[in-house]
Amino acid sequence: MNEPIVIPPRHGTAFILHAGDTLEVIDPLGEQVSDMLAFSRADVRELISNGRTFDYEETISLTVGNRLWSNRSRPMLEIVADSVGRHDFLLTPCSEATFRHFYPAKPVHRGCMGNLVSALQSYDVTEDAIPTAFNIFMNVVVDGQTGRLQVLPPTSKPGDSIRFRALMDLVIGLTACSAYASNGGSFKPIHYRVVPE
Amino acid sequence: MNEPIVIPPRHGTAFILHAGDTLEVIDPLGEQVSDMLAFSRADVRELISNGRTFDYEETISLTVGNRLWSNRSRPMLEIVADSVGRHDFLLTPCSEATFRHFYPAKPVHRGCMGNLVSALQSYDVTEDAIPTAFNIFMNVVVDGQTGRLQVLPPTSKPGDSIRFRALMDLVIGLTACSAYASNGGSFKPIHYRVVPE
Repeated sequence: MNEPIVIPPRHGTAFILHAGDTLEVIDPLGEQVSDMLAFSRADVRELISNGRTFDYEETISLTVGNRLWSNRSRPMLEIVADSVGRHDFLLTPCSEATFRHFYPAKPVHRGCMGNLVSALQSYDVTEDAIPTAFNIFMNVVVDGQTGRLQVLPPTSKPGDSIRFRALMDLVIGLTACSAYASNGGSFKPIHYRVVPE
Repeated sequence: MNEPIVIPPRHGTAFILHAGDTLEVIDPLGEQVSDMLAFSRADVRELISNGRTFDYEETISLTVGNRLWSNRSRPMLEIVADSVGRHDFLLTPCSEATFRHFYPAKPVHRGCMGNLVSALQSYDVTEDAIPTAFNIFMNVVVDGQTGRLQVLPPTSKPGDSIRFRALMDLVIGLTACSAYASNGGSFKPIHYRVVPE
């Protein structure tokens, strides 16, 4: 298997994932989050949609066997392996505005949002077009009675990973999360590898 | 108070809502859903975001006192009255694709998606830009343990309503829902009125 590529702490990247390729995202040190976006390579106006995914998968808890759907009702990615089983598809990437809101006493960072905007620029994705991300390893607990959300440290251990199979040619955006709450207050790298079909 | 405007069953509309105006959405017969979208009038690339809203409101159950936020982290609407207290912000508007998926034996309808696309065309909103809607009166139950979603009939009774105050100049899209599951299998009108500041 090819060596994983390193996303340094509080950074992001973007790359092409061909239909049939497998993307593996690894948490090398444990308790780190990776925000993932997906756009159709043929037309980036087709993009990952939490609403369509919740509709078709009939759950907000996505793991092996579930697919991530586009705004055009087409499956983009299928989860084919998952050693964690706990990810979030409710919350948007952390950004300068969320840093000011949630951590007023801490230095502002451009966050996953800024990192994704920068990485996706060369694929003609604009900031306004960035939707709710699929937040790999992010541990968000929903109270079914009250609807209250709680962001807890990820349950991922060092070396845990999730694998996706691409169902169409995609542009992927991927980060090592920059927020305090989502990774228990520490900033860590994320590793990933693409395994061709 | 001005007379309400009628959205006929399985139809939709779009209109300007000025900052400070109040929008009241009424379920005249009970158990009907209305999908709502909001875009900044100044730039329709700024639009309602379930992810940003869940982030800032820290709940998926939105009612009086909660605000609906844009993808640019600005509050667009505040809920100022609500006789139902049960709405959905997880699922996307029903569409030809969702009709084929969920109701394969029933005639396909363009659904709320088609109605919104048509109504919003003159405001330069394209189909790909339509995000997860705020689904007024839609009763979606989330199992906090498993994440499973269930669409149940709305709890709204005849004459129930919700009121929003606009926090910026908006383009609003609004429907009387066309899907079977979301309104208990019957298609009914939705009423609304705009009360100027």
